[in-house]
Amino acid sequence: MHVLVIGAAGMVGRKLVERLVADGTLNGQSISTMTLYDVVEPTAPAGAGFSVETRAGDFSAEGAAEALIAGRPDVIFHLAAIVSGEAELEFDKGYRINLTGTWALLEAIRKAEYRPRLVFTSSIAVFGAPFPETIPDDFHHTPLTSYGVQKSCGEMLLMDYTRKGMVDGIGIRLPTICVRPGKPNKAASGFFSGIIREPLAGVEAVCPVDADVVHWFASPRSAVGFLIHAAGLDGETVGPRRNLTMPGLGETVGGMVEALRRVAGDQVADRVRWEPDPFIQGIVAGWPTTFEAKRARELGFKAESNFEEIIRAHIEDELGGKIAS
Amino acid sequence: MHVLVIGAAGMVGRKLVERLVADGTLNGQSISTMTLYDVVEPTAPAGAGFSVETRAGDFSAEGAAEALIAGRPDVIFHLAAIVSGEAELEFDKGYRINLTGTWALLEAIRKAEYRPRLVFTSSIAVFGAPFPETIPDDFHHTPLTSYGVQKSCGEMLLMDYTRKGMVDGIGIRLPTICVRPGKPNKAASGFFSGIIREPLAGVEAVCPVDADVVHWFASPRSAVGFLIHAAGLDGETVGPRRNLTMPGLGETVGGMVEALRRVAGDQVADRVRWEPDPFIQGIVAGWPTTFEAKRARELGFKAESNFEEIIRAHIEDELGGKIAS
Repeated sequence: MHVLVIGAAGMVGRKLVERLVADGTLNGQSISTMTLYDVVEPTAPAGAGFSVETRAGDFSAEGAAEALIAGRPDVIFHLAAIVSGEAELEFDKGYRINLTGTWALLEAIRKAEYRPRLVFTSSIAVFGAPFPETIPDDFHHTPLTSYGVQKSCGEMLLMDYTRKGMVDGIGIRLPTICVRPGKPNKAASGFFSGIIREPLAGVEAVCPVDADVVHWFASPRSAVGFLIHAAGLDGETVGPRRNLTMPGLGETVGGMVEALRRVAGDQVADRVRWEPDPFIQGIVAGWPTTFEAKRARELGFKAESNFEEIIRAHIEDELGGKIAS
Repeated sequence: MHVLVIGAAGMVGRKLVERLVADGTLNGQSISTMTLYDVVEPTAPAGAGFSVETRAGDFSAEGAAEALIAGRPDVIFHLAAIVSGEAELEFDKGYRINLTGTWALLEAIRKAEYRPRLVFTSSIAVFGAPFPETIPDDFHHTPLTSYGVQKSCGEMLLMDYTRKGMVDGIGIRLPTICVRPGKPNKAASGFFSGIIREPLAGVEAVCPVDADVVHWFASPRSAVGFLIHAAGLDGETVGPRRNLTMPGLGETVGGMVEALRRVAGDQVADRVRWEPDPFIQGIVAGWPTTFEAKRARELGFKAESNFEEIIRAHIEDELGGKIAS
């Protein structure tokens, strides 16, 4: 089993690689080779019981996708993306990586004439306001960001290339991943993690939206679980509708901070300062709130069921169980 | 007012040009120039009270879109497409014209740094089975043809370039146009017109699906009306959701033939032979049936309300009022 991870240096990519190294298997088969690719060279994981090759490059450059496919990986995780905030500011760059790059990958697989499982990370950004209170699986795609449009086009291409037998794709629409470890990235949704991560690390955090803003979350641990589960899904069971809204947890920002209070106490929760910013409130108002995610749950995808679980996963996975007092 | 029609040699394109020549105006302004473009050189219409330029070319070729935009047309009708049946057989050609070509047009407009009204003809093929009994405006896009995927991606790009202020686009999802005059094109939906057109011309026609198959129709006359109405819509009123499912008429194939019987008599209607073809039945089973089209109706788009009107429009517009006995 040869596994290729495109976008392996990103937060979710690194956690996926850690998990694959720990498991040593995927879909019940031993991993023999892993290729890790990103725009910056990914760090080879420690303790892998199989060969790991790391490569850096521009995913959208002429021939880059063909070179990645030359080793005929059995499972490809495609996580490479210009994130929402950056794709909004850098129009050409966003389209080049998120749409042209994804299309080039599909074309490279088609030309290699074999049919690997391709797991494509899409996003709930394919949806755009106004929304019903709970968004059903069959809600239309009216993205309000360039990132959402690029992901939606990627989903469409994945579906068509799969239907034509050129690849065996599964697209997973990730919730907002929370709590993201490390430093904020350029995603406009960064504060959702910041208001949990910073207080737990002893640092004040500003919440730029009102407490009643609802959003849709899953932990990094769940995101990795979604990827692994998608790699093993039976394509016939999924059928031609290959893009799935992942389960998650709908929570208000106020509810998140109350969960933080229950898990870590008043001193930690009081490190959140409420300073609503009309500009950010405006962006967030166009974002989805709560999803039904019925199909994905039926297909066995699992996420957290309350926000305390999400916070505890962060404390366990990132903080060695310790909270800054 | 300079009007550009891309795909002017096709059936709907020719009818649109006839109507613009007859009106002499668009959006209440006199037409001063019209540019007609297609892969084969369009015929210049007779009796135009303004200058008409005709051009032939490959819409997706390097520089082709820029050359079309150089004259800074105020309204652009983009009707060029590889139709469903052909796009399914010729994968690369379909993507090149329907997706790469449409994207190149948007890029050319963006680079010209002005904001024309672009009317993009999309299709109900952006939807794919299974469907609810009546398909609402907010139903998700799960096309089951490459054509539908290409149109869906075109819609997404149109929406994003419009949101970013790079163009002022309106996408209209046309019903199956019926009755198409002339010879069948390569669309898999051709028989829907054939079973009305051929009997009216004194020729037998084969219906390859069962009488209870339901589909969604509008006349060529209505299609032209949609295009003209879309050209004049106020973008602010439409908002960011720029792709609209056009109104039409849901009818069974059996109901179509009964309408033909009422309009033209038994002798004509009995020229339809029922020979269900499992292959064509299978394709058609994936196609949409009946739409709500609420938003488009509210925005003033109008279609026929019964199938007799559609047949009568064909007899008036194409047969000079005469039916072959």
